[in-house]
Amino acid sequence: MPELRKDPIIGRWVIISTERGKRPTSFTSVVRTNEAKMCPFCPGNEHATPPEIMAYRRTNSEPNRPGWRLRVIPNKYPALKIEGNLSREPQGIYDRMNGIGAHEVIIETADHGRDLMDMSIDEIHDVLWSYRERMTDLERDSRFQYILIFKNHGEAAGASLEHAHSQLIAMPIVPKRVMEEIVGAKRYFDFKERCIFCDIIRQEIVNQERIVSDFDAFIAYEPFASRFPFETHIIPKTHQSSFLEMSDFEYAKLAACLKDTLIRLNLALNNPPFNYVLHTRPVSKESHDHFHWHLEIIPKLTKMAGFEWGSGFFINPTAPEDAAAFLRAIDVSRYRMMPETKVAGDNV
Amino acid sequence: MPELRKDPIIGRWVIISTERGKRPTSFTSVVRTNEAKMCPFCPGNEHATPPEIMAYRRTNSEPNRPGWRLRVIPNKYPALKIEGNLSREPQGIYDRMNGIGAHEVIIETADHGRDLMDMSIDEIHDVLWSYRERMTDLERDSRFQYILIFKNHGEAAGASLEHAHSQLIAMPIVPKRVMEEIVGAKRYFDFKERCIFCDIIRQEIVNQERIVSDFDAFIAYEPFASRFPFETHIIPKTHQSSFLEMSDFEYAKLAACLKDTLIRLNLALNNPPFNYVLHTRPVSKESHDHFHWHLEIIPKLTKMAGFEWGSGFFINPTAPEDAAAFLRAIDVSRYRMMPETKVAGDNV
Repeated sequence: MPELRKDPIIGRWVIISTERGKRPTSFTSVVRTNEAKMCPFCPGNEHATPPEIMAYRRTNSEPNRPGWRLRVIPNKYPALKIEGNLSREPQGIYDRMNGIGAHEVIIETADHGRDLMDMSIDEIHDVLWSYRERMTDLERDSRFQYILIFKNHGEAAGASLEHAHSQLIAMPIVPKRVMEEIVGAKRYFDFKERCIFCDIIRQEIVNQERIVSDFDAFIAYEPFASRFPFETHIIPKTHQSSFLEMSDFEYAKLAACLKDTLIRLNLALNNPPFNYVLHTRPVSKESHDHFHWHLEIIPKLTKMAGFEWGSGFFINPTAPEDAAAFLRAIDVSRYRMMPETKVAGDNV
Repeated sequence: MPELRKDPIIGRWVIISTERGKRPTSFTSVVRTNEAKMCPFCPGNEHATPPEIMAYRRTNSEPNRPGWRLRVIPNKYPALKIEGNLSREPQGIYDRMNGIGAHEVIIETADHGRDLMDMSIDEIHDVLWSYRERMTDLERDSRFQYILIFKNHGEAAGASLEHAHSQLIAMPIVPKRVMEEIVGAKRYFDFKERCIFCDIIRQEIVNQERIVSDFDAFIAYEPFASRFPFETHIIPKTHQSSFLEMSDFEYAKLAACLKDTLIRLNLALNNPPFNYVLHTRPVSKESHDHFHWHLEIIPKLTKMAGFEWGSGFFINPTAPEDAAAFLRAIDVSRYRMMPETKVAGDNV
């Protein structure tokens, strides 16, 4: 059983998930099974994954069979386990909890060769909608405090399978970075009676120099104190504390903005590995007027000096203003999307 | 001029150091000059570095000439600049400071082929003593709040030159991770009137299962809520808030403990890239009875899934108890130190 452990000094929770099978000796050489031969995320290989939780599929097609365009499955090697009751207990000075949670995979497309930025706005809308559906469902489970959605693109960014997918982890704690934002934003709100994110958006729109693009309801911008080169955030212009508050129209706008941003990063940086992480309000029913949801996209460009982990101190060699100017100047029409391929097992 | 920028939401300072020369286009392909041909850290190449700040060298040998066994120089590509007065100013909602600081390199040995763990305990003692000397000197500069000392070993851990070296950054802020520890430890101290680190050490010594080694004045152990596999901390058993409080005897003990720990990690994980970061009290003259200095060693083993950056949430696939047992079982005598080579330009 995985477990959650709390750092007694700074209060950060960590999952110790030894069942994922990293014995000490497994670090000494890089062993990678060749999974390319048989992609478990491709249509026709549904038997290779745990049974699906939901899918967007052709009418009359059967669950766990081809005919889907998006599929959500439990992670085969979950970091947290869904069964059991939460129990928190001390171990002397320490705190631990059993590792209760959900760990799901959203297979974004049936097409092995295409990534999110190759998909149509409608298809990306579907992906965002699936996030919404899973979040809404999991928020009903009173054991969970936060639903974390993220995407790893490229091996260097931690993706173990190349077929386009996102991940979701529902957890009984709020991740530290999100909690820090909530605490900081609350402090500002208590003082100013305004959302700090709304104030940042206002200033960025007046200033313009860190804006990458403006999609009516959303902006993509490079944060003033970006930790990483080309770190890009997408944020709704009007105040929303949760990803679930959007209208259908806004999901479509977000899909367009996300596609545009990923294409700009792709062209600017030659298809970089990247991660994105959704920051939204915790499940808690308390008011979160002070918090404003957003999506953080981090291309993996620099060889992390590693001391950042140990110090929490970052040296960013690219000014966000330069990165924004570079991304704005990208001619998005230059991007050649991967054409949709006929998928094995799909007979439509 | 580099600048320091503060994240307005969570309060983290970041260095934007564009003079280090990462233009957007430089990320699109890996360009590495072949520096192995001429190592600027080797004796005989002293002209290739800025003039030395200090060195441990043979009597009668001249500065910036061979004859040294340890040499401290300014970083040729400093993240912060030493000249100027601190000025902090708002930019609307944001805060910035000019990037005042010192960025130094400690060349740990004249011998290109040897790393810290290959050196004798006396030589490692010299390295630690040089940290002490530079910290003591820089703490006199009232512009600085923290002296950060760290080491990157191996290219994957961010080392751009293979010749063994550590780095020092004196900065006008306290790094976020250290500040979090200070704040957390203060909260505990206010409640318990005891140092939380002292309490952790007591419990770990009774418990034993996360202890890697015990060197009288120091223990090396795997933290209960380790973020990374084989994350190892070295900490003095008796309360000391600053690295500068040690006796000469303790520096020697620390050298022995550090050497032993690095050899264990080397043998267990096949010479992994690693980083270490010294956490010590800030320069501030306030009492830090609640804080306890320590050294954090992080081997770079897993491909960072990257979402850790975006969430502050970690999944560690190796239980610290397993890592500690594995490291304890290492037969340190198996380690074959690189013999000291005759160094070019050294005629002793």
